[in-house]
Amino acid sequence: MQYSFASRAQTLLSSPLRNIRELAKRDSFISLAEELPAEELFPMHSLAEAATSVLTADPEALQYGEAEGYRPLREWLSRDLAKRKGLSVQAGNILLTTGTQQAIDLLVRVYVEPGDAVLVENPTSPGLLQVLRLQGAEIVPVPGDSSGMLPDRLAPLIRKHRPKLLMAAPNFTNPTGVMWSLERRTQVLELCVQHGLLIVEDDSYGDLYFGAAGGQDRKQREQRLPSLFSLEEKQGEHVLYVGSFSKTVAPALRTGWAAGSSQVIEMMTAVKQMADWQSSMLNQRMLHHLLESNHFKLEDHIEMLNREYATRLKLMVELLKRSAWKDAKYEVPSGGMFLWVELPPGLNGDALLRAALMKGAAFLPGSMCSAGGENAECIRLNFTHPGRDELLLGMNLISEAVMEFTARN
Amino acid sequence: MQYSFASRAQTLLSSPLRNIRELAKRDSFISLAEELPAEELFPMHSLAEAATSVLTADPEALQYGEAEGYRPLREWLSRDLAKRKGLSVQAGNILLTTGTQQAIDLLVRVYVEPGDAVLVENPTSPGLLQVLRLQGAEIVPVPGDSSGMLPDRLAPLIRKHRPKLLMAAPNFTNPTGVMWSLERRTQVLELCVQHGLLIVEDDSYGDLYFGAAGGQDRKQREQRLPSLFSLEEKQGEHVLYVGSFSKTVAPALRTGWAAGSSQVIEMMTAVKQMADWQSSMLNQRMLHHLLESNHFKLEDHIEMLNREYATRLKLMVELLKRSAWKDAKYEVPSGGMFLWVELPPGLNGDALLRAALMKGAAFLPGSMCSAGGENAECIRLNFTHPGRDELLLGMNLISEAVMEFTARN
Repeated sequence: MQYSFASRAQTLLSSPLRNIRELAKRDSFISLAEELPAEELFPMHSLAEAATSVLTADPEALQYGEAEGYRPLREWLSRDLAKRKGLSVQAGNILLTTGTQQAIDLLVRVYVEPGDAVLVENPTSPGLLQVLRLQGAEIVPVPGDSSGMLPDRLAPLIRKHRPKLLMAAPNFTNPTGVMWSLERRTQVLELCVQHGLLIVEDDSYGDLYFGAAGGQDRKQREQRLPSLFSLEEKQGEHVLYVGSFSKTVAPALRTGWAAGSSQVIEMMTAVKQMADWQSSMLNQRMLHHLLESNHFKLEDHIEMLNREYATRLKLMVELLKRSAWKDAKYEVPSGGMFLWVELPPGLNGDALLRAALMKGAAFLPGSMCSAGGENAECIRLNFTHPGRDELLLGMNLISEAVMEFTARN
Repeated sequence: MQYSFASRAQTLLSSPLRNIRELAKRDSFISLAEELPAEELFPMHSLAEAATSVLTADPEALQYGEAEGYRPLREWLSRDLAKRKGLSVQAGNILLTTGTQQAIDLLVRVYVEPGDAVLVENPTSPGLLQVLRLQGAEIVPVPGDSSGMLPDRLAPLIRKHRPKLLMAAPNFTNPTGVMWSLERRTQVLELCVQHGLLIVEDDSYGDLYFGAAGGQDRKQREQRLPSLFSLEEKQGEHVLYVGSFSKTVAPALRTGWAAGSSQVIEMMTAVKQMADWQSSMLNQRMLHHLLESNHFKLEDHIEMLNREYATRLKLMVELLKRSAWKDAKYEVPSGGMFLWVELPPGLNGDALLRAALMKGAAFLPGSMCSAGGENAECIRLNFTHPGRDELLLGMNLISEAVMEFTARN
């Protein structure tokens, strides 16, 4: 039969990331394209212990639960966000979701009408662009630099497009790894408050903070820059704060959250219930048990992750000093999962990807990170997933592809 | 600030079910409004064993995985659907979802444009109505009787509204518990094929089949009526078959599926990935481990559930013989989770609910099961969740409310 899909659904099939994922299933393939954490660092045994405890304690752990998510985990989060990040948010103003991607999708479904303008960073994450495209939003990119979004470019765009929403990830923006300065945070927040814009602040990567040299001490890290959410006088009024345990504990628990004003969280909870009733109560209980256990300290676990990820980033930066990458440009991020590289002059990320795929390696081409396919001269490299050998081999294969192009030029 | 939600989002907040859920959190409250399985029957220990095995075997169990879902579980499902239900569907044509609710939401998001007509049974499930409302569909109810949807009412509605989609649950339709006859299945399928309509066949309740008297033997149950999916010559072309493990194993695993044509499943996978990347691989691996284990046989487990649920239904039917329910009408279903009752003449389900809530009990008013609030003289009672004592008490409280109304009339 002739299926008649909704017109915007076609935008979902155009993503070249789908092909990369298909290829990456091959055993010998090395993908630096994804945003995966290192699985060898997952707290497997602590989670096995948590699963046993939860599954022998109470059959309710396997029942349907509240759409908002497991209350004790929301209470834990409320305390943790206060303690480690200076956020003041009640458990009742937190909705648990299937990762940050779902949190963003839910908000966009209830807040954005087709044709509404939405401001995004430029470049931004492919997953966010897909959500906005399916909803039929007018995507308006706001330029930034190495200190974050540029307020003097933001102001005229707000006046021109009268957007409803600004999407921002001030801590290690995907894909560039940029950390917004305090000044930029304050200025952008002020502009949004002034014009009645809601901000979605995606803090998926904020805990992965290890300093440019990988050498900052814990105390310094704890004095990190305040979130947009915590900078607002009446916290949560103009900012919806989203995050997840996918990068700090494990993605397969599929547990993220949105924290914000009662009105926004209530509406998101209603659409959450309609979309899938609720995320897994079992996973939420396991996670809560883990976080409350004496054998596991989230801060220590994150510290361990950051030491390891800093080492991997360092290795990647070393490998970029090789001759193939002469004239490539990048700033070493102080955290996150990605290195954003401007290729040697004349190179195109999409063409380079095709060559790299043939060699058995992948990265994310910059064109996928912009609404209009800009940034084709850039690529995003993930350094958290590959171990030392994989990183060496993957970078070698990509370097070979680069050299073939530069030799030809 | 003044939040400007999308206009259709408001339809999500109007659901009185939200208030019932809020009340039902009280300890002494008895809700026959929900569609919960009995938690004391969950295979907790087998699942604890599965969790331990999965969490000590392979760190990949905690990593991101394929949007389609864990491949070995999809292969298991493909075999099980063939063996127990006569469906011919490859693992590659199955998408794992966060329950059937998500399967339906995903399909509607990619298939229905605002203003498109969608045919539904009348009455139908509140969750389905919410999905269609948010997408802006024109909801067209098709009348049925105790043998299922009426083909001679369906045909003119297809000609008049030119719908894209028909939503059906031929096995124990929610809320009525009706089991469509073979003749109706064939006729409805034929009409849809003829007019190029896609059917979404929701088989959430099909395994809960215990015969009117609770006494049919296993062999009889295995010769149950074929699904619309398996009746089509080219299986999967016009029918998307959705189901879940929520009622047969446990809801908190949040594992359902959609099975259909490659084109539809590919598009649903793309929107699934955009919506939340994927459901929990950990849960899917645990479920797969359970289903493959020697200590657990799904058929035996379902048999046990059905014996127990048949007993609870029998008790509920006994209680309806009391004088309060004189002149109420109902047909005893041969499976599922609900008894659909037409109240004694003059009674209204919404008014009765308000009275019952004050006494500490709830049911689902029929008005919530129709696009236009019809069926206000009916109510839906759940008999799977309450144990014997709870069922007695809950039915007593509702009976008291009924008597107050009939005494007044």
